[in-house]
Amino acid sequence: MNTQKLKKIINHVFIKHGLSNKHAKISSNYIIKAELVGAPSHGLARLKMYCNRIKKKLINCKPKIKIKKISQSISHIDANNAIGFVGADTGIKIAISNAKKTGFGMVGVKNSGHYGLSSFYAEQAVKKNLMVWCFTNAPPAIAPYGSTKALFGTNPVCFGAPTGNKIPFILDASASIINRGKIRRAEKLGQKIPAGVALDKNGKPTTNAKKALEGVQLPIAEFKGSGLAWMVDIVSGVLTGANHGGKVKDPFDDLTGPQNVGHLFIVIKPGIFVGKNYLTQIKKNLKAVKRLPRSNMIKKILYPGENKYAKYKKNIKKSIEIPDNILQEMNKLNAI
Amino acid sequence: MNTQKLKKIINHVFIKHGLSNKHAKISSNYIIKAELVGAPSHGLARLKMYCNRIKKKLINCKPKIKIKKISQSISHIDANNAIGFVGADTGIKIAISNAKKTGFGMVGVKNSGHYGLSSFYAEQAVKKNLMVWCFTNAPPAIAPYGSTKALFGTNPVCFGAPTGNKIPFILDASASIINRGKIRRAEKLGQKIPAGVALDKNGKPTTNAKKALEGVQLPIAEFKGSGLAWMVDIVSGVLTGANHGGKVKDPFDDLTGPQNVGHLFIVIKPGIFVGKNYLTQIKKNLKAVKRLPRSNMIKKILYPGENKYAKYKKNIKKSIEIPDNILQEMNKLNAI
Repeated sequence: MNTQKLKKIINHVFIKHGLSNKHAKISSNYIIKAELVGAPSHGLARLKMYCNRIKKKLINCKPKIKIKKISQSISHIDANNAIGFVGADTGIKIAISNAKKTGFGMVGVKNSGHYGLSSFYAEQAVKKNLMVWCFTNAPPAIAPYGSTKALFGTNPVCFGAPTGNKIPFILDASASIINRGKIRRAEKLGQKIPAGVALDKNGKPTTNAKKALEGVQLPIAEFKGSGLAWMVDIVSGVLTGANHGGKVKDPFDDLTGPQNVGHLFIVIKPGIFVGKNYLTQIKKNLKAVKRLPRSNMIKKILYPGENKYAKYKKNIKKSIEIPDNILQEMNKLNAI
Repeated sequence: MNTQKLKKIINHVFIKHGLSNKHAKISSNYIIKAELVGAPSHGLARLKMYCNRIKKKLINCKPKIKIKKISQSISHIDANNAIGFVGADTGIKIAISNAKKTGFGMVGVKNSGHYGLSSFYAEQAVKKNLMVWCFTNAPPAIAPYGSTKALFGTNPVCFGAPTGNKIPFILDASASIINRGKIRRAEKLGQKIPAGVALDKNGKPTTNAKKALEGVQLPIAEFKGSGLAWMVDIVSGVLTGANHGGKVKDPFDDLTGPQNVGHLFIVIKPGIFVGKNYLTQIKKNLKAVKRLPRSNMIKKILYPGENKYAKYKKNIKKSIEIPDNILQEMNKLNAI
């Protein structure tokens, strides 16, 4: 389907379900963007889930978002259970504004929800020539190292930096070997998942997506990946006043209350120490890595973000392919 | 050897080589501490290297460390090629002081050197009830994803948080599967390294420590570990004005100039958003993870930092065992 047409439909679906024009526009933009960058697990596959939560009033259509200014650099947001896209979008915009004034901005967000890809928010900062970390926690998916039960979310470390060219450096590394959205999508489409990335609820390896969702995902690099997921839970949840320690609710399966996801955004002026020399040096840095001898397994050495950017550029010209079952869901939601 | 006696000898060695009393004390403390926490690869095994670099004037014995205050929260340090321990120690102390005043402190350090374990500096902040990230880059050891040549250092992500008890949460996760110091120590002691962690200079897997040092180490989790190492290089090197992109000199093998390592310290008041509730929540968080069902492979679920703390407590009561060849090195240095 044509991107503009699709965006209008999604927007319409959200407005029909009660979101304001402004919030519907923010949300549909991010959902379409997930499709365009090649992350459909964070796109249309989640539309029904968002609408379900809106209908059950677990996502607040008319949130009173409270913004508390702690200093010129630091702000705290209570998103009042707004849809995650809006909670996070408010947060990153304030962090950017604070960083522009003082060289550094930090914003903690509580009472928010699943916000799509962290790279959406990192990109906003990088486009304003700022360096950024975005952290969010998520419902239990990964077993802490040494445990057989899921507790941490896939809790990505997301970092962005201006590159001096139009393709930003954006690392978005989840702590799980593959992301949970990919497993959800495999389940939806009846596909198998790769071996070695998940255990079933009895702690046995599985390639069945449904069993993996009932069981646990494995962290990257054992205790290191587990530790990184724990760090993200602490800074997104404990620090901000959001849920944490396995208490963030699963947006699909748990309709007993709002998710209360937490986010932390840290934004820095990249010239804060070295001025304009930052751009000269980052260009040298990227060039030094890209010109290294490469293994036969890859065509080109890429920096984080290049791949998603290339997919976006390619997909923006094409129509978006929508799997049948998701198209049916979408049509039902639009017909309400 | 008795810890106090050993510390005196190291201190004496450094003073003989020209460090000031103050800088010798800082450096010997950190070297002994590496031994006590069970990281001998960052301890006495490096003493000769530091002394060599001092003799060659690549480490500056009388550095004029310049501290530039950018705001109440942000400072930039030119360590003037001081020994890395001193450059970093100055940096973390200022970051702590800034954070105490404003809730947030950020310090970039350039013209520094290898500073031992990141957890040394994280611990200082956590002991003052602060949350902290410590980043440092390092000489080439890891091949970027898709390349066959080492460029990134083992570039750890180090994060610390107060726990409300005497054992701090300190994650110190390097981007390599095993740390370079362990390979160096294996080489020194004539031991093999595990399979699957390194390639020789021809890109073939090796368990020979010497060949691994000539070749490349493999990053954790492929492009994710590679991306994390790249992020650490950008924030430690490009941002601060230090070397980066493979230009940080190897302290053992490259005597053509000072290392110019860079560090970045970010320190946050953990109560900045939620006040005293932070301590209540972090305790709940740790308890929630530690009481999960555990696999048969481990005795107890531990948070990052517990293991090193236990080793420290155990080792502080014992004498430190020193391998013969390192003892000989030390005696030679002390006899100068």
